[in-house]
Parts: sequence; structure tokens; C-alpha cells
Amino acid sequence: MEAFSDGVFAIAITLLILTVTPPTHGELAHELLRLWPSYVAYAVSFLTIGIIWVNHHSIFRLFAGVDRTMLFLNVFFLMVVAFIPFPTEVVADNVRDPGSRKAAALLYGCNMILLAIGFVVLWTYGSGRLLREDSDRREVAGITRSFIPGIPVYTFGTLLAFVSPIASLIVFAALAGFYVLSSSLFARRIV
Amino acid sequence: MEAFSDGVFAIAITLLILTVTPPTHGELAHELLRLWPSYVAYAVSFLTIGIIWVNHHSIFRLFAGVDRTMLFLNVFFLMVVAFIPFPTEVVADNVRDPGSRKAAALLYGCNMILLAIGFVVLWTYGSGRLLREDSDRREVAGITRSFIPGIPVYTFGTLLAFVSPIASLIVFAALAGFYVLSSSLFARRIV
Amino acid sequence: MEAFSDGVFAIAITLLILTVTPPTHGELAHELLRLWPSYVAYAVSFLTIGIIWVNHHSIFRLFAGVDRTMLFLNVFFLMVVAFIPFPTEVVADNVRDPGSRKAAALLYGCNMILLAIGFVVLWTYGSGRLLREDSDRREVAGITRSFIPGIPVYTFGTLLAFVSPIASLIVFAALAGFYVLSSSLFARRIV
Amino acid sequence: MEAFSDGVFAIAITLLILTVTPPTHGELAHELLRLWPSYVAYAVSFLTIGIIWVNHHSIFRLFAGVDRTMLFLNVFFLMVVAFIPFPTEVVADNVRDPGSRKAAALLYGCNMILLAIGFVVLWTYGSGRLLREDSDRREVAGITRSFIPGIPVYTFGTLLAFVSPIASLIVFAALAGFYVLSSSLFARRIV
Repeated sequence: MEAFSDGVFAIAITLLILTVTPPTHGELAHELLRLWPSYVAYAVSFLTIGIIWVNHHSIFRLFAGVDRTMLFLNVFFLMVVAFIPFPTEVVADNVRDPGSRKAAALLYGCNMILLAIGFVVLWTYGSGRLLREDSDRREVAGITRSFIPGIPVYTFGTLLAFVSPIASLIVFAALAGFYVLSSSLFARRIV
Repeated sequence: MEAFSDGVFAIAITLLILTVTPPTHGELAHELLRLWPSYVAYAVSFLTIGIIWVNHHSIFRLFAGVDRTMLFLNVFFLMVVAFIPFPTEVVADNVRDPGSRKAAALLYGCNMILLAIGFVVLWTYGSGRLLREDSDRREVAGITRSFIPGIPVYTFGTLLAFVSPIASLIVFAALAGFYVLSSSLFARRIV
Repeated sequence: MEAFSDGVFAIAITLLILTVTPPTHGELAHELLRLWPSYVAYAVSFLTIGIIWVNHHSIFRLFAGVDRTMLFLNVFFLMVVAFIPFPTEVVADNVRDPGSRKAAALLYGCNMILLAIGFVVLWTYGSGRLLREDSDRREVAGITRSFIPGIPVYTFGTLLAFVSPIASLIVFAALAGFYVLSSSLFARRIV
Repeated sequence: MEAFSDGVFAIAITLLILTVTPPTHGELAHELLRLWPSYVAYAVSFLTIGIIWVNHHSIFRLFAGVDRTMLFLNVFFLMVVAFIPFPTEVVADNVRDPGSRKAAALLYGCNMILLAIGFVVLWTYGSGRLLREDSDRREVAGITRSFIPGIPVYTFGTLLAFVSPIASLIVFAALAGFYVLSSSLFARRIV
């Protein structure tokens, strides 16, 4: 199952480049610079899938095996991950348009909330039934704690789009950056 | 061969997102909501490929090895699986159009019937020649029985499109949901 | 290296579905039937990549390892394999147009000739330097012999396009079918 | 991590074919020949990703393991690799247009500079902290030396675009060819 999940992560992350469409008219240098929202959206979604991949491994490493229920919970989770290129493209295409960017930010935010819920569901089911016998209770409790802020934080970022879509998108980018930094600096364990 | 098949499943399932095309004009929130058939079609086909992946593993786990005939039977099977994004997009684009949705439902249904036939062919050939010596006769008989309804049920769903294309599409969605539920609830064995 | 090659085969074979473009106007049932060249081209190229995958494994299984020269010969080979979706789409889009189909058949044929050359290069280099010590001389000679017809046969099929592009395309489809049948029927060894 | 990276390399390299768009009007033979910049760009970027893949393995083979910092450095590196199809398409579409090709060459060059920087970062971090205990000091020093020219050479090639975009693109193609030749001829070690 890890191989299949890894495949989906690797494909979804690489398909993100298809959300950056080469300009077909206008002065090229100018058009390439105008595409900056696509580059930023590409980078943020790339980091997000990268983080998901690292976390997914971290939790499945602690399970002794998977049952069929977990297989299908994981398929639902991957369905949300593989969806990411769509809101990424919608945000990149609409962030410059004041009339559209609220809807775009809400769409992106809903995808992020579903991801956060997905992680909680995978972990709640898996940590309740599938843990290895020798698993470290403190590590398990630490992971449980680390998943607590995800849903409220992404819900806050999403609701923020009603006030300021730009602020909402900055929150999503900042969260991706924060997760990368905190993981890299505070969890240097050799894996 | 499992690695190659897993790769094709993972790619086909992730390519499904390309069937959901971002709107390029109109009021964005409205256009995103109007895309609901694309979201539903994405989810149903995603679950369908997820189920195929789980079942494919279940049956190949029982084979001692594969011969060249099986390799090519599997290539034909993967050809049908990798085709799924095409009818998925056709259904999503046409479900709202009363003049087109019959053809779309028939196309989707034919793909599903070919999948059901593919499974029966793989299993009939493999269970006749390639079974492990220690394989459990009861499990083998159980799998054979579980494949019996597939072809008639999908044929019924497809023919239903002549009467009501919408009913036909609901049957395909319900079958995907039913397989996920029945697998998750009744076959909790650790794998 | 096998994993990377398998990945490229699996992705190239699955990307073929992107060469089948859903119709966007006209009466849907009629337009779906009119797409038959896309379905045939999809199937022929799918089988072709499937055969390449099986043969690639068959020859690398006999090598004790790979050196850097082989790594890059293999990259060139994969470059030709990953190109297949392009001529596939060109053939499907132009087979109905008498003024275009010669160029399309020549393009497809050139891709096939390069594949045949690629196999000869990989095998000539590898069988000269990298064979396992315990490799069966008869099997090695058999593979060498089986690669002899490839280049002339595909060159013939390609040149045939100058006389009859349709005949040329039928030859390519027949060759794919022939390789599948001959492999399946005459080489049933368990792998 | 190697499996995930391999997946991204394999997908990015295979997606390159999507940068070669089949002609939709005009005389087909003529249009296919006019696409030569797309074929060249495809080949150069394919070789470039092939070289990256070989080098990535060469350096990670020397590490005893990876920590979280390395995981995320690698995610940033893959972000740059998976970006390659975009400048590839931009270069292919604009190389014939004297008013656009400077911007296209600069874009491609910036991607190459980021790749060269990425390799230096991965290697500097990894060789400082993660080396196997039994690693060969001479091999390590050799790799360090081999990475020294990358950044200045690609920076030179990129700046050259201000004088002659065509010369700049020729440099990028020549560098890909040079790396393949030098690796194949001078490093024949069995891997």
C-alpha cells in the first residue's frame, strides 16, 4: 500500500506543473512575469504534497499492518490529495481578479480542510487498531497532539477568505512554509 | 509485474484530476458549482480504480508466479483500466445534456463491463494454472463466487441507460460505493 | 534502473489515454463512434509499450549489472519509448484525411524503427559486456536471433507508407498483435 | 525516499512528451518538420533529467540515511526538477521568434542554475552529516570537485542569452551531451 500511495503522491506532485500554462501571445518576458501566481501556487502545493508524503510515512511506519477498512480510508485520503492540482490552477488563474479570488480561496481551503480531516481519520482509525505492539506511547501521543491544530487552523484560513481572500491564501502558503521549517529544524531524527 | 500494474493504477487514478477542467469564464463561484458532475465522476472513478487495485492484489497474491500469457492478459486488463479517464470526462461533460447523456452512460457502462470481463478472464486463467500449492480452496471458491455477479450487474446497469441514463449512472456510483462498504465492513482481515 | 524504466513504461502507457480527446460538439453518439481511430491507435500503442516492457525485462534479467554506458543507452531508449504518445495522437487525428495520413504513418514508423534499433543497441552492448556468468548460451543466441527481423520489418512497414499509408498502419497493428500472440503461445515459461 | 524521488524523475521525464503538441491545421508533413524545436527541446530536457537521476543516485548511495532536513531539501530539489517541462515548452514554442527567444532562454537557464544550486545544497548538507562511515574519502572529494563547475557554467550559459539566445540554448544542449558522454566514457564502473 505504501508503494501505491507513494506513486499517487509522486504523480500528483509532478502533475502540478501542468497547472502552469505557457503563454501563447503577448510579449513573452512580460507574460512570463505575469504568471507569478502560477509559480507561487505551484511551489505552495508542491510543498504541501511533500509534507503530506513525509507525514503519511511517519504514521504508517507505526502500524503493524493494514486491514481493508484502512485500505479504503487511504483511497479516500488519496482522492483528496490527487485533487490538489485543480484548486491550485483555479487559485493561480483567479488571484488577480478581485471578483473571483474569494471563490478560489474557498475552494483551495476546502481541499486543505479535507486533507486535515483525512489525516485525523487515518490516524484515529490506525492508532486505535493497527499500532505495532512495540510502538512508543510517547511518540503516539505526540503525533495525536500534532494533528489537533490542523482542522481548526485550516478552517480559520478558509473562513478568512470571506474577509480577505489574499490574507487567506497567505495563511495557506505560510502554513506550508511553517510545517517544512518546523519539521526540518525540530525533528532531525535519522529515518 | 505487480510493480508495473501498481504504477498503471496509480497513474490512471491520479490522471483523473485532468478530467476536471478549471472554468475560464463566467462568475467563478457559479462555474465551480456547475462543475459538480465532474467532482462526482472523479470520485466514482477514483473509487472504482481503488477497488480494482485492492482486488487485483487479492487475486495475484494467490498465484505462485505468472507466465507470459498472464503477462499479456494483464496488459489487456490494464488497457481497460487506463481507459477509464476518457468515459469519466465524457460523462461529466454530458450528464446535464438530455440529448447526450444516454451515449455517455453507455460508453461508461461498456468500460465497466470490459473491466468485469477482464477480472473474470484473469481469475479464470490464473486460478486454473497458477495457484500456489498451499492455496486455500475455500478462499479460491469464494473469489470465484464473488466474481459471478460482476458481468450481469454491469450489463444491467449499462442497458438501463436505454431507459434512463441518469438511473444507469446512479447504479454505477452505487456499485462503487457498495463494493467499498462491503469490502471494508466484511473483510477486515489484516493484509 | 529497472524501477526507473518500469516507471517510464507505466507512465507512457497510461498517458496514452490523453491522446483520446473527448468530443466537445456535435451529436455525442456519432462523435464517439467517429473517434474509432483514436481507440485503435490507443490499443496498438498500448500493446506495443506492453511488449517493450516484457522484452526489456527479459533481457535485463540476463545481465549481472549495468555500467554507466548502459544507464545512458537506456535513457536514450526510454526517450524513444516516452515519445510514442505523440505519433499515436498524430496518426489517430489524421488517418481519415487522405492528404495527411502518409506523413502520419511515416512518423509512427520512424518511432517504431528507432525502438527496434534501440533494442538491438541495448542487447548488443549488454550481451557483449554485462551477461551473468551462468547465462544460458542457447537463450542468449535465441534472443539475438529474435531481434534480427525487427529493424527490416519495421523499415518495410514504414516505406510501405509511400505506397499505401493504410497498409502501413495495418502492418504496425498486425506486428503488435503478432508479438503478443507469439509470446503468449510459444513462451509459456513461468517468470 | 529514493522510490519517491525516482517516481518524480520518471514522471517528469515522461510528461515532457506533453510539451510536443500535435499540429491541428496546415499541411501535416510540413507542420511536423516545423516542430523540430519541440523535438530538440524534448531530447535535451530528457537527457538532462536522465543525468540528474543518475547523479542523484550516485550521491544518495553514499549516505547512511536521511534526516528530515534532507527530506525537505530533497522536496525543494524535486520541485525544481518537476518544473523542467514548463521552460522546455516555452523554449520550443519561442525559439523561432527573435523577439521572444531571449526571455525563453533566460527562463530555461534559471531553471538549470537552480538545479545546479540544488545539487550543491543536497551534497553539501549530505556529505557534511550523513555519509556512511565506510565511504571512500577520494570518491567524496571527487564528487565535491565535479559539482564545482556546475553553477558558474550554467550562469555563463544563461547570461549569454543577453548576447545571443541561440548560443545560450546551444550551450545548454551541449552541456547535456557533454555530461552524458563524460559519464558514459570515463565512469564505466559497474553499479
